[in-house]
Amino acid sequence: MLEQFLHLVRTRESVRQYLPDPVHPEQVERILEAARLAPSACNAQPWTFIVVNDPEIRNKLADATSNKLIGLNHFTKQAPVHIVVVMEPANLTSRIGSVVKQKHFPLIDIGIAAEHICLAAAAEGLGTCMIGWFHETTVRNVLSIPAKSRPVLIITLGWPANEQPREKRRKGLGDIVRYNQYQSG
Amino acid sequence: MLEQFLHLVRTRESVRQYLPDPVHPEQVERILEAARLAPSACNAQPWTFIVVNDPEIRNKLADATSNKLIGLNHFTKQAPVHIVVVMEPANLTSRIGSVVKQKHFPLIDIGIAAEHICLAAAAEGLGTCMIGWFHETTVRNVLSIPAKSRPVLIITLGWPANEQPREKRRKGLGDIVRYNQYQSG
Repeated sequence: MLEQFLHLVRTRESVRQYLPDPVHPEQVERILEAARLAPSACNAQPWTFIVVNDPEIRNKLADATSNKLIGLNHFTKQAPVHIVVVMEPANLTSRIGSVVKQKHFPLIDIGIAAEHICLAAAAEGLGTCMIGWFHETTVRNVLSIPAKSRPVLIITLGWPANEQPREKRRKGLGDIVRYNQYQSG
Repeated sequence: MLEQFLHLVRTRESVRQYLPDPVHPEQVERILEAARLAPSACNAQPWTFIVVNDPEIRNKLADATSNKLIGLNHFTKQAPVHIVVVMEPANLTSRIGSVVKQKHFPLIDIGIAAEHICLAAAAEGLGTCMIGWFHETTVRNVLSIPAKSRPVLIITLGWPANEQPREKRRKGLGDIVRYNQYQSG
């Protein structure tokens, strides 16, 4: 069964060209079910997912993620659905951990839940792209996100225009894996 | 195929009781292959994975994750393998993004890669537990991790002593999903 998961991992890629076909709301819900079940530090579940499928609001969001000057993320208007991953204040145990251990656990949690969304979508043949670079104030205003919460990622979702996955450029296992010590050998 | 992924997501849980049986090095490698293929901001791949299977070093690590006073993580000595997820400095594009957008993308990336490990392990019937709360200086010293790099998570890996997965305590979809606006309704 690991081979199936590895196949899914190889299938998932950042999709930047979408067909105009809609994504069924039931599909979106099933994909979000995968995010709902994601683990998080101290089970804080510090997240809200805003599904944006209203064309007007989606276009405003797309404007917040694209930059005409440097040509960034022009594709976002094509994607029929955007899922905005909002980071919420964590529960007390996780917050204490973040302070004492000086690492912000909710960011790790957000990565996990967002990847559950992307893998679940890939399992449906859908394409996604995680976008972390956007105009936060605009997104906050367009979606009325309160000050206590923070939009961290926008995930575009739709049917990929290209069916052939690209080859992944990654470091080799030898470059990233060590045994029993940081320095190998 | 989404059902298969949802099944995997439901299967994965934090395992805190392990059998003494060893995990095959080839299995560990295949699990790490899933982490190797994980996406990251600007494809920075800001990670090193230290596989600790030497009993003596593993016990020292386990001491860094358990706390006799408050009874935290006593189970870590049972797990035959620990995978220490080390965060590396990101590439330039990701670093600029982290500064300009004031969010530390490598922490998100670490969450994604760590969850690939846990899901891949679950697909093999193996149990994992992500631990973020440990004595960082001890871990750093035991594994000779240089100052530029940071151990963020320790994942215990082994055969679960209990085969029956627990029911997950999670918020409902209605509590975490909104449509087109942060405030529903």
